[in-house]
Amino acid sequence: MAVTDIARRTWDHGWRLDPIIRSLLDTDFYKLLMLQMIRNLYPDTHATFALRNRTESVRLAEVIEEAELRAQLDHARTLRFSKKELIWLAGNSFYGQTRMFAPDFLAWLADFQLPEYELSRRDGQFELRFAGPWCATMMWEIPALAIVNELRARAALHRKGRFALDVLYARAKAKLWTKVERLRALPDLAISDFGTRRRHGFLWQRWCVEALKEGLGERLIGTSNILLAMDNDLEAIGTNAHELPMAVAALANNDEELRKAPYRVLEEWQRHYHGNLLIVLPDAFGTTAFLRDAPDWVADWTGFRPDSAPPITAGEAIIDWWRQHGRDPRQKLLIFSDGMDVDSIERTYRHFNGRVRMSFGWGTNLTNDFRGCDPDGLPGLEPISLVAKIVEVDGRPAVKLSDNPAKASGEPAEVARYLSVFGGEGRERHDTEV
Amino acid sequence: MAVTDIARRTWDHGWRLDPIIRSLLDTDFYKLLMLQMIRNLYPDTHATFALRNRTESVRLAEVIEEAELRAQLDHARTLRFSKKELIWLAGNSFYGQTRMFAPDFLAWLADFQLPEYELSRRDGQFELRFAGPWCATMMWEIPALAIVNELRARAALHRKGRFALDVLYARAKAKLWTKVERLRALPDLAISDFGTRRRHGFLWQRWCVEALKEGLGERLIGTSNILLAMDNDLEAIGTNAHELPMAVAALANNDEELRKAPYRVLEEWQRHYHGNLLIVLPDAFGTTAFLRDAPDWVADWTGFRPDSAPPITAGEAIIDWWRQHGRDPRQKLLIFSDGMDVDSIERTYRHFNGRVRMSFGWGTNLTNDFRGCDPDGLPGLEPISLVAKIVEVDGRPAVKLSDNPAKASGEPAEVARYLSVFGGEGRERHDTEV
Repeated sequence: MAVTDIARRTWDHGWRLDPIIRSLLDTDFYKLLMLQMIRNLYPDTHATFALRNRTESVRLAEVIEEAELRAQLDHARTLRFSKKELIWLAGNSFYGQTRMFAPDFLAWLADFQLPEYELSRRDGQFELRFAGPWCATMMWEIPALAIVNELRARAALHRKGRFALDVLYARAKAKLWTKVERLRALPDLAISDFGTRRRHGFLWQRWCVEALKEGLGERLIGTSNILLAMDNDLEAIGTNAHELPMAVAALANNDEELRKAPYRVLEEWQRHYHGNLLIVLPDAFGTTAFLRDAPDWVADWTGFRPDSAPPITAGEAIIDWWRQHGRDPRQKLLIFSDGMDVDSIERTYRHFNGRVRMSFGWGTNLTNDFRGCDPDGLPGLEPISLVAKIVEVDGRPAVKLSDNPAKASGEPAEVARYLSVFGGEGRERHDTEV
Repeated sequence: MAVTDIARRTWDHGWRLDPIIRSLLDTDFYKLLMLQMIRNLYPDTHATFALRNRTESVRLAEVIEEAELRAQLDHARTLRFSKKELIWLAGNSFYGQTRMFAPDFLAWLADFQLPEYELSRRDGQFELRFAGPWCATMMWEIPALAIVNELRARAALHRKGRFALDVLYARAKAKLWTKVERLRALPDLAISDFGTRRRHGFLWQRWCVEALKEGLGERLIGTSNILLAMDNDLEAIGTNAHELPMAVAALANNDEELRKAPYRVLEEWQRHYHGNLLIVLPDAFGTTAFLRDAPDWVADWTGFRPDSAPPITAGEAIIDWWRQHGRDPRQKLLIFSDGMDVDSIERTYRHFNGRVRMSFGWGTNLTNDFRGCDPDGLPGLEPISLVAKIVEVDGRPAVKLSDNPAKASGEPAEVARYLSVFGGEGRERHDTEV
């Protein structure tokens, strides 16, 4: 009995689009947490997000068809949160807390739609911008990145044979599992998937997360991807991102307000969330400056997520700062999420084990590590450093200094002003592969 | 649209048996060549074949359920050659020759059925014997071995999780492809699949052969598996096996007839076949003895298949012998098929390249190399040295001396008699992993 589903086959004949984004929950959890706060405090603020490919050698607009990109972006705009998804957001507990999302926020989400986009090309790159109300445009960040990354992977795989593809995924699976086996040797490991934005593709991310669930058991504390968290009964992980301090800083009316912006954001955040959601992201304008000027109450927060300084350097600086403020680091949490892979996870884990609580957000090197996997040895699958950053808030330019100048963004004059306010101490350039 | 084939799913609910052998063509090509000759010359000869597990540490009867084994053997006995298969055997060319199989032989095949079997257990092993007319029992060799090997693999995988299985096959695919990439570096390589009897499973062998076809292109000269040759438009590869000299030797009425038996078989063979099918298998009673006593006309044959001596030693001895008989080795063919893997293929290829034509029969290490692939690290998938040998012919015991005493078979008294006739020169024990 040769079994072929004829209806399925006939449906396939009429194939027009294999949508990359099929649910508005296919995004990072922190977006919803931030969105709820932004909608409360900044309902009328406009914010523009723009795609930026830091890996300039990869000329995306020569790799990806503009029409395909538009078709995927247009398809994402047709999506709405489904009833099932809204019920889950209302009924599920997050970080041990029920009713994380207020009923009026969920009612508002029910009508949510991704706003319009502006797409053009320049110098072999796409200029992709999202302008409009902050509480609409901010939701484009993750789907836009996932779409561009997956279209690039599809282009690289377009003309491959069936067996070359089979071997490619076999190697990638074998490679990931070898990483899982190494991570299993770290008894107190707490790790979560942070790989949505730079993933090879949705199905591959799903495989990776399900493999981690089977392979790491309790050591996998969750995933930043809300859809995968829902479908796999995993914890949704994430708190806040650079767009918050960047926007609040951009709205500052003078240098003094600018200097206080990073702490004002934290005050706003702790009016909305508490417990393990009180995680400081200290590097928007430099961690050294942040710690130097931070009020004592910041040391009451649960932990820090150093995201651009080398993990051990940053972790030690934060532990010192906790000690100076009389707090016991062993009660505190450090979350490492900047381009981590097994080597740096092992090194960081061993360095801090027993001295501080720790967890890892594993992103690109979890969900997009096909290095050495292509049997034809062609380029096109190596991950690139693609971001979608806030660039303008109510007509004012937004800036990120970062601990790593390679990750900075903003107009040069504004960057110079920010450097004069925050100082550049402790910033150190290192290559960002992803 | 969630697409599930409901009819298929319902069929699966009633699943009773996943048959290992689904076609009588799922066997080695040399069996049909030998069968045609045996039916012509030995139609009334009885021959008993018996399974033997040389890897005694693996207690097969404790790993495989006897009822499962019976169900698979019984299922194989229900098979007949299909019309499509017989038409293909009649219409296809083999080794460049059309009408390889005579019409009356094909008409006889149409009614062929695997004969009865005898199954019992002793010392943790199965005693599996096939007694009856040689031209029926000889067809059990390959399916019986394939069934036992696949049942063992299924038992090893029985309780594995979905991801463990996924990673296992991913690793095995990645491992095989790495071998393919090494073999691609040998420009004049000629290699074929000889892995039916000891395969992990049918579907895995099929994957391996199709992967070689894509990965090696023209360097893959074919497969010994007739079904896979038919389905993939590959050449069916194979000539003759030890059962021929063993049976003819067993039928010898005195030591002089015994001494001549290896050459008598070749005379019978060359009345049936010619060209590239004239391949000498010299080691049944020791290659040294065979070459010492061989008549000059044996040097007119196309080539030799040394199958139990170390490949370089055996190849050099045969090349010397050709030279002594005034033949140019560069016109001759050596086929290496004894437990080959990439290391020994590379070594042998480099040693003989340019001095003799060469091809490789790649068996167990092609279709059953899961070493290091099980994510749980459990035993049960390492290949074993399982054979189904002719043990009795018309009531007389059959013997194989081999170049490697570890591969010898027969009753001790008969083995001693054979050694007195052929001498034991050049025999050397080395471990047979597979």
